[in-house]
Amino acid sequence: MAYFDNAATTYPKPDAVYSFMDSFYRNHGGSVGRGGYALANTAKSLVDETRKLIQELMHCPAKQVIFTPTATIALNMIIQGVIIGGARSVYISPFEHNAVTRILHHFEQLGQIAVTELAVSESLEYDMARIRYQFDDIRPDLVIVSHASNVIGLIAPVEEIFALAKEYSAVTLVDMAQTAGLVDLNTGLETIDFAVFAGHKTLLGPTGISGFIMNPEVELTPTLYGGTGYDSANQNMPVSLPEKFEMGTLNIAGIAGLNAALKWIKSQSIEKLYKEEEERRQQLLCILNNYDYLTVVGNVEGRKYVGIVSCLLEGISSDSAGNIFAERGISVRVGLQCAPKAHQFLGTYPAGTIRFSVNAFTNDDDYKELRDALEDISSEM
Amino acid sequence: MAYFDNAATTYPKPDAVYSFMDSFYRNHGGSVGRGGYALANTAKSLVDETRKLIQELMHCPAKQVIFTPTATIALNMIIQGVIIGGARSVYISPFEHNAVTRILHHFEQLGQIAVTELAVSESLEYDMARIRYQFDDIRPDLVIVSHASNVIGLIAPVEEIFALAKEYSAVTLVDMAQTAGLVDLNTGLETIDFAVFAGHKTLLGPTGISGFIMNPEVELTPTLYGGTGYDSANQNMPVSLPEKFEMGTLNIAGIAGLNAALKWIKSQSIEKLYKEEEERRQQLLCILNNYDYLTVVGNVEGRKYVGIVSCLLEGISSDSAGNIFAERGISVRVGLQCAPKAHQFLGTYPAGTIRFSVNAFTNDDDYKELRDALEDISSEM
Repeated sequence: MAYFDNAATTYPKPDAVYSFMDSFYRNHGGSVGRGGYALANTAKSLVDETRKLIQELMHCPAKQVIFTPTATIALNMIIQGVIIGGARSVYISPFEHNAVTRILHHFEQLGQIAVTELAVSESLEYDMARIRYQFDDIRPDLVIVSHASNVIGLIAPVEEIFALAKEYSAVTLVDMAQTAGLVDLNTGLETIDFAVFAGHKTLLGPTGISGFIMNPEVELTPTLYGGTGYDSANQNMPVSLPEKFEMGTLNIAGIAGLNAALKWIKSQSIEKLYKEEEERRQQLLCILNNYDYLTVVGNVEGRKYVGIVSCLLEGISSDSAGNIFAERGISVRVGLQCAPKAHQFLGTYPAGTIRFSVNAFTNDDDYKELRDALEDISSEM
Repeated sequence: MAYFDNAATTYPKPDAVYSFMDSFYRNHGGSVGRGGYALANTAKSLVDETRKLIQELMHCPAKQVIFTPTATIALNMIIQGVIIGGARSVYISPFEHNAVTRILHHFEQLGQIAVTELAVSESLEYDMARIRYQFDDIRPDLVIVSHASNVIGLIAPVEEIFALAKEYSAVTLVDMAQTAGLVDLNTGLETIDFAVFAGHKTLLGPTGISGFIMNPEVELTPTLYGGTGYDSANQNMPVSLPEKFEMGTLNIAGIAGLNAALKWIKSQSIEKLYKEEEERRQQLLCILNNYDYLTVVGNVEGRKYVGIVSCLLEGISSDSAGNIFAERGISVRVGLQCAPKAHQFLGTYPAGTIRFSVNAFTNDDDYKELRDALEDISSEM
């Protein structure tokens, strides 16, 4: 088995993630951090420490870390809250995931918002001059950018786009599902209001724990309600952070795993992990470029990427291609990868692509298996 | 350490829960069930099997199991969806948690709904005759009942209440956070539209995985949007179940733990687990009744309960009481337990109570420690 689906979820995790998750939950799982007793205090310390590790990793000591079960729920809370708070004109990158576009589509259908795609050239460059024209034409209320595309791995110049967006006083949201813990971004910047992270992807933690960083000054309307183990007599959500957005029982088992993952990333450094992933991506490209029947999509010299590569397989639908790789023990994701708009932009809609995604854990055995499979397919063509 | 906070989260879990969660996630964690390859198929089998185990345990083979990260999110999806779908008149039991009442409060403030409490007598009996009058007076669109109160453990006659509610064509929702896997309820009944379960409470699974059972015939409007790894070109949520309500990456690690928990419950039988918990509750009551300075609240002969007992400590605020127990290594939950309306009904608002919650895992050592602590407190009074 060779695993090339790290963009869906990273695998394997550092060993410490499995072990600490198991041992913490076995020994201290009798609490969700809300009681006043010893076990509860242990859980509270874990949660507090994990928030601090996120703040440190993402350079935002003055911002608030909110834990959510998934990045999708984080995006719902932020986007729905900002729109209910009055945003009407929403700009998105051409690479947004359905976790963003399906939310927006709902409000578009209601006639409450208008959505515009930020100008990106055919050579995959964000066209800052044209974006300024776009903003002059329709003033942005909310600007949403995926830090890296989950289809082609292209990294967006978030700092530049958001600096411009802030000239127009827009609320800004960066989706770091494919970059948190991998691509260094100063989320402490004043121009970044919200940054969403997915615990089980580049952060190398388990499923079930994600969240967002928010500028505590930004007014965000809650859209999910529930118990907070705090201020219980109040029938509104508390105004204090993080309680305002952390309703229900926190996933303590997941936070334990994320805690260990964050410590592991810190021990390695983001720079090193990114460098290794980039080397692994180059290795992957070298292999894929050996086969005429494969065409890499959206990979342009001079742009910056994470370890995600999309391909077309000549004359074969991406669905059949999926089976061809699956039969040979190669884990890839085929089709639209939940990002139909990215494929529309790239000209690969509606069939989609075969996506290979690597990280620092992808090893030579994986590449050997991939090469064998590609040779095998080659010989059958 | 003696653990009396099982109503917050059960602890410990059966050993198989920890072990299977760890081993499945280590060996098969490279997938979230959406790719077409071997590991993804393993995860898909796990998820499918876990749905079937829930259907079996809750007697609802023809109903749909939807996984959500928390019971709170399940309640938001159902209650918000039903209200957006047109419900105006909502009835609730007097024992609802903030996970229900804070959602309702939001829509009440908007003037979109009116909320009425179902008639319950001072002797804690649901007064079916009066409830019929209530329904005649204001026709119910949605009826929500906590199967067991998280404050006093009282079990509600859900079948009876919902049979009546269905005479008025109301949508029905039972919150089984404190009962799923412990109190046998036939959720396959036609009168039950929605039943919410919390994986980490009476189901003995880990945090981060919960869900609901729904009658697939009921039209529920989605209120959370995102990728489903399926029907990706569609910018609306898919109409198929469970995809319509399962956006974002499923918590595979959590589902593995829940899977093991469900198998463990099956091996024991619900009846046996309830019987053991009831014995433990009687033991607890015996101990608490030995001390004049403790007054048990809401425990009426002839009613049915789960292992939750609330007390008042004479002359001492519940906050200080919490510290008194915490210092002695006894884990209890003090205050309003996220259910202020239950305390208003019981006359223990706003100070709340000291809540002890036991289950089949509560052992004689726990009781010994509790007795020692109570003697200790006694001697200081």
